Amino acid sequence: MKERTLVSDLGSSAGKDVVVGGWLHSIRKQGKIVFLLLRDRSGIVQIVTDADAVKRHDLRNETAVWIGGTVLQDARAQGGVEISLKSVEVLSRPAKTLPIMVNEKADHLKYELETILNNRVLSLRNPKRNMIFRLQAEIIDGFRTYLRSQGFTEVTTPKIIVSGTEGGTQLFSVDYFDKLAYLAQSPQFYKQMLVGAGYERVFEIGHVYRAEIHNTARHLNEYVSLDYEMGFIDNEHDVMDMEERLIVHLFDRVNESCARILEEYGQRLPVPERIPRIPVKEACELLEREHGRRYPGYDLDPEGERLICEWCAKEHGTELLFLIDYPTTKRPVYAMPHELKPGFTRSFDLLFRGLEITTGGQRIHDHETLVNAFRGKGLVTEEYDFYLDTFAYGMPPHGGLAIGLERITAQILGLANVREASIFPRDRSRIIP
Amino acid sequence: MKERTLVSDLGSSAGKDVVVGGWLHSIRKQGKIVFLLLRDRSGIVQIVTDADAVKRHDLRNETAVWIGGTVLQDARAQGGVEISLKSVEVLSRPAKTLPIMVNEKADHLKYELETILNNRVLSLRNPKRNMIFRLQAEIIDGFRTYLRSQGFTEVTTPKIIVSGTEGGTQLFSVDYFDKLAYLAQSPQFYKQMLVGAGYERVFEIGHVYRAEIHNTARHLNEYVSLDYEMGFIDNEHDVMDMEERLIVHLFDRVNESCARILEEYGQRLPVPERIPRIPVKEACELLEREHGRRYPGYDLDPEGERLICEWCAKEHGTELLFLIDYPTTKRPVYAMPHELKPGFTRSFDLLFRGLEITTGGQRIHDHETLVNAFRGKGLVTEEYDFYLDTFAYGMPPHGGLAIGLERITAQILGLANVREASIFPRDRSRIIP
Repeated sequence: MKERTLVSDLGSSAGKDVVVGGWLHSIRKQGKIVFLLLRDRSGIVQIVTDADAVKRHDLRNETAVWIGGTVLQDARAQGGVEISLKSVEVLSRPAKTLPIMVNEKADHLKYELETILNNRVLSLRNPKRNMIFRLQAEIIDGFRTYLRSQGFTEVTTPKIIVSGTEGGTQLFSVDYFDKLAYLAQSPQFYKQMLVGAGYERVFEIGHVYRAEIHNTARHLNEYVSLDYEMGFIDNEHDVMDMEERLIVHLFDRVNESCARILEEYGQRLPVPERIPRIPVKEACELLEREHGRRYPGYDLDPEGERLICEWCAKEHGTELLFLIDYPTTKRPVYAMPHELKPGFTRSFDLLFRGLEITTGGQRIHDHETLVNAFRGKGLVTEEYDFYLDTFAYGMPPHGGLAIGLERITAQILGLANVREASIFPRDRSRIIP
Repeated sequence: MKERTLVSDLGSSAGKDVVVGGWLHSIRKQGKIVFLLLRDRSGIVQIVTDADAVKRHDLRNETAVWIGGTVLQDARAQGGVEISLKSVEVLSRPAKTLPIMVNEKADHLKYELETILNNRVLSLRNPKRNMIFRLQAEIIDGFRTYLRSQGFTEVTTPKIIVSGTEGGTQLFSVDYFDKLAYLAQSPQFYKQMLVGAGYERVFEIGHVYRAEIHNTARHLNEYVSLDYEMGFIDNEHDVMDMEERLIVHLFDRVNESCARILEEYGQRLPVPERIPRIPVKEACELLEREHGRRYPGYDLDPEGERLICEWCAKEHGTELLFLIDYPTTKRPVYAMPHELKPGFTRSFDLLFRGLEITTGGQRIHDHETLVNAFRGKGLVTEEYDFYLDTFAYGMPPHGGLAIGLERITAQILGLANVREASIFPRDRSRIIP
């Protein structure tokens, strides 16, 4: 491979000849001098040349190039250095007119989301938009790094399945040879099975699929779920304790490695000391008392989530809030009933800046109780034997949760639509690109 | 959470009272004394009690328990300690007879693969079988750790797509609202697009789907692909150089963190210094000369792959071998033609112990060349505009590869069937569990 210097490493090369590679971000003439900006994965550097060179090499915005030249210190330039051009090798020239500008600073404001997503590759060349997924990669890695440090094993479970984990609706069907199969809504059954398989603590970073017909700013039909499940717990608070420490680790890491990204997006990310845990019933009573909003099924709408987070920020000084003790009717069949609160379960959601980013809880681990719960919902237990049998051979108390990767990314950066936090989002109408 | 001591940490607790949690691995009476083995995620410990306690608590194999007791040093016991039982809390008793033995040392030999997979959760409780996926988790983490250190960004790309990357066959179809969609055969198009989106170097760990009808010991219909793609390369050798260093990193790591697992499986994992690169044409000529086998299309069969690896081990002292310069007819439309060898491409496979574990190569980056290649295969380019347009806006030379996670796991441990290296495999006839 060519001896290449990344833009971010130029600072230590003053006076030396280097080769940089990347895309021409902009071309600005000033009399006979031409200032090129070259953009690589690490940053942008200014290159000084003349109009003749630009013409001779037919340089245009977004041309992919190798450029050779001498690094010069220049306090006025970004990064304190610029390059005096000596040689150019054009790797590939744009063959079409650019449909959107890459180097527009305010492209976030200028283009509609549809335009951004229709021109996904070019839109991601914009440095500000590009950063979203650099930060997302840090979240993914922070999640796994923390859980590995806590004795969790990373697993991969199948996405082609025979029955849903959250009931039969909202499943995409797959034509699997001569069988009808579905895309997994969550790795729920499998991660529980792997707790029971002796791993005790497992996590998975993988796609999940929801055939929900509503097309909102907070829903995707394919998204990345950060899942963990842990055995030998006392109750759901052990799962929340783990998430609390995970959030601290994640936020610390994002603050450290993504400081510039947060700054660019005008965001701060205060690290919570404790995340309050409020029964959803109390939250609803509070919303009725203070805002006159009624939630008879304890099912908050987006405005309710926003208001309760606002209250939490004022009352507890944090933008994160666990709502706990959801009613049985609102939770899946495997949710552990709360023995002290009939009609409620040992389950929780985590809200962050007005949006639910996690659903979790303790699960039923007793075989008979679980089978009866399935029957009570009218489910044919034989279809779930591959799952239910797990509980017939000694299963410890356990629980877990799922964090929506795109949602936590969007909330950290203050993005209005969760699609902005999905590289190639899938929704009701979009399967391209 | 209960103050719990993991079995692996008992060594430093001699003389202390502890609580351990896990499953009863075996129960052995010797006169009035009973020796229990308790298995948790970290190991197995012996617990000494009497027949009365076993009867009182109705203890049976695979019961999930908390056990309290005093740690005693005992040089004869595994780990140098055992526990004198003081208290028992049964968490969950088996409700059915165990269909397979968990504590059988030789279960690998005893049960058919079908039985193992039909009883996946119980089979994974067997310590030796459980280890497979602990080692696999190390491979996953080693892959990402190394690539992150090389400036790669981790990405997640959609698995619901509109058109195949390897031609139209072998695709599973998905009923996506009112549209027909497919499951991705590989993240190929998307990772190239993300190179072009300015990330330059990306990797993904995700599921891929192949609707192949053959049911062999080396094929899965859903598997995990370890993918990377890198821009600004000179040619495919840069991609191989990267994989060579990745393999060294991976093997070093497996040797360090999974020494006991390798030992249990009777495997050694020599770290290669260099991986030979042999044109596939030469390999075929050699196989004809030495073994009388003819491969007119340069398409090795499993026996050919085995023989050429055998030759490589003898000739070059390594079990890894790059076969390079595959003919154009055997590679996908986007493979970079080899300008010095008409009819061949800048592509490669990596074989390891007789099995192909990687396919990779340099890709076409010139827009016109790529469009012509698509047309030459009779493909309707409009259907691929979302991909082809990437190349119309300045694309650097690039290449990448995909490693089959289950295959590399199976080869490292000497497993005869790749299904053994998939937690819940999907094949022609299996979608349960």
